[in-house]
Amino acid sequence: MEQSERLTKQFDFIREIDKEKFVGRQTYLSDGIRKENDAEHAWHMAIMTILLSEYANEEIDVLKTVTMLLIHDIVEIDAGDTYAYDEEAKKTQKDREEKAAERIYGILPEDQAEKLMALWQEFESCKTKESRFARAMDNLQPLMLNAAADGRAWEEHKVRLTQIMDRNQRTCKGSEVLWEYALANFIRPNVQKGRIISE
Amino acid sequence: MEQSERLTKQFDFIREIDKEKFVGRQTYLSDGIRKENDAEHAWHMAIMTILLSEYANEEIDVLKTVTMLLIHDIVEIDAGDTYAYDEEAKKTQKDREEKAAERIYGILPEDQAEKLMALWQEFESCKTKESRFARAMDNLQPLMLNAAADGRAWEEHKVRLTQIMDRNQRTCKGSEVLWEYALANFIRPNVQKGRIISE
Repeated sequence: MEQSERLTKQFDFIREIDKEKFVGRQTYLSDGIRKENDAEHAWHMAIMTILLSEYANEEIDVLKTVTMLLIHDIVEIDAGDTYAYDEEAKKTQKDREEKAAERIYGILPEDQAEKLMALWQEFESCKTKESRFARAMDNLQPLMLNAAADGRAWEEHKVRLTQIMDRNQRTCKGSEVLWEYALANFIRPNVQKGRIISE
Repeated sequence: MEQSERLTKQFDFIREIDKEKFVGRQTYLSDGIRKENDAEHAWHMAIMTILLSEYANEEIDVLKTVTMLLIHDIVEIDAGDTYAYDEEAKKTQKDREEKAAERIYGILPEDQAEKLMALWQEFESCKTKESRFARAMDNLQPLMLNAAADGRAWEEHKVRLTQIMDRNQRTCKGSEVLWEYALANFIRPNVQKGRIISE
């Protein structure tokens, strides 16, 4: 492939992913007013990974984990954000996201398309140490923000403690230390304040 | 330092930088309607670096460059975004940003505060291969978006070609290939269309 053709594909992809900035999430920012979008979420998790990798249960490749987190929500440009506790939407999530991955990563030159697709699949299957840590970040970042926004998103969605514990079954597989910190600082105080429904 | 004290500092910083999502830039997103914020801009540049590092004039440390780009605009939480062509605001920019860096990076544990401060200073002084490539990304990303939004930001600010060329004097120091691509695909077509004022 000529360099100019390769560059065209790369910039077509770079322009396409601008749309991730329009994919809204359910998490409020720390002001408790505006909700976060996928690009902001990914940026935040990438910095968290750089600062918190010392707490990974097993030593991780930081660049690989950061890359995984920066690119894994790109599928939501087509598939939309599926809210963590929306059981109906979660039934079709896998199909919608696989089609999206094929289309969007496929805009890139073949070698880079394959690399990003493989990283996205690795994140989804959650069987490597990097994907376990990345998943922990993906769960901890909204817990941190929900706590910072005084639990508004939890209250609006009437979220129960059992749902959070279920969603976070694997967070401790990425980092025991960070899961314990989240339990003590983000979750338990909000159960006590009634922001999270205790059953 | 105890682990819990270290974690508290790290999460204080992680919560503080959420404010970067509220720092607006002058660049329109590809829809030509909403303007970008600093966190979205950093996310976009981090992915660009991962995909385009092959065009760096000298081989770069990708994780270092990505980290630099993810954290360098954090100072704007206090100092605000200084528009590339606002000559008055640029006079006080350095002072404002240095104070901000002291305060915000200083929230972190000392070793991480020093590391991020050093990376920010490296970006600012632009004397290493990583900082030269990072600067190229910081200039190319808005050129790419301005072209995608049909030149709206250039028209609104009555931007002249000489201003763009002046601003981009060092872009080629990071990557000759990417600068040539930007000239041919983002800049020249918009001079021809009258979106950029040619003198």
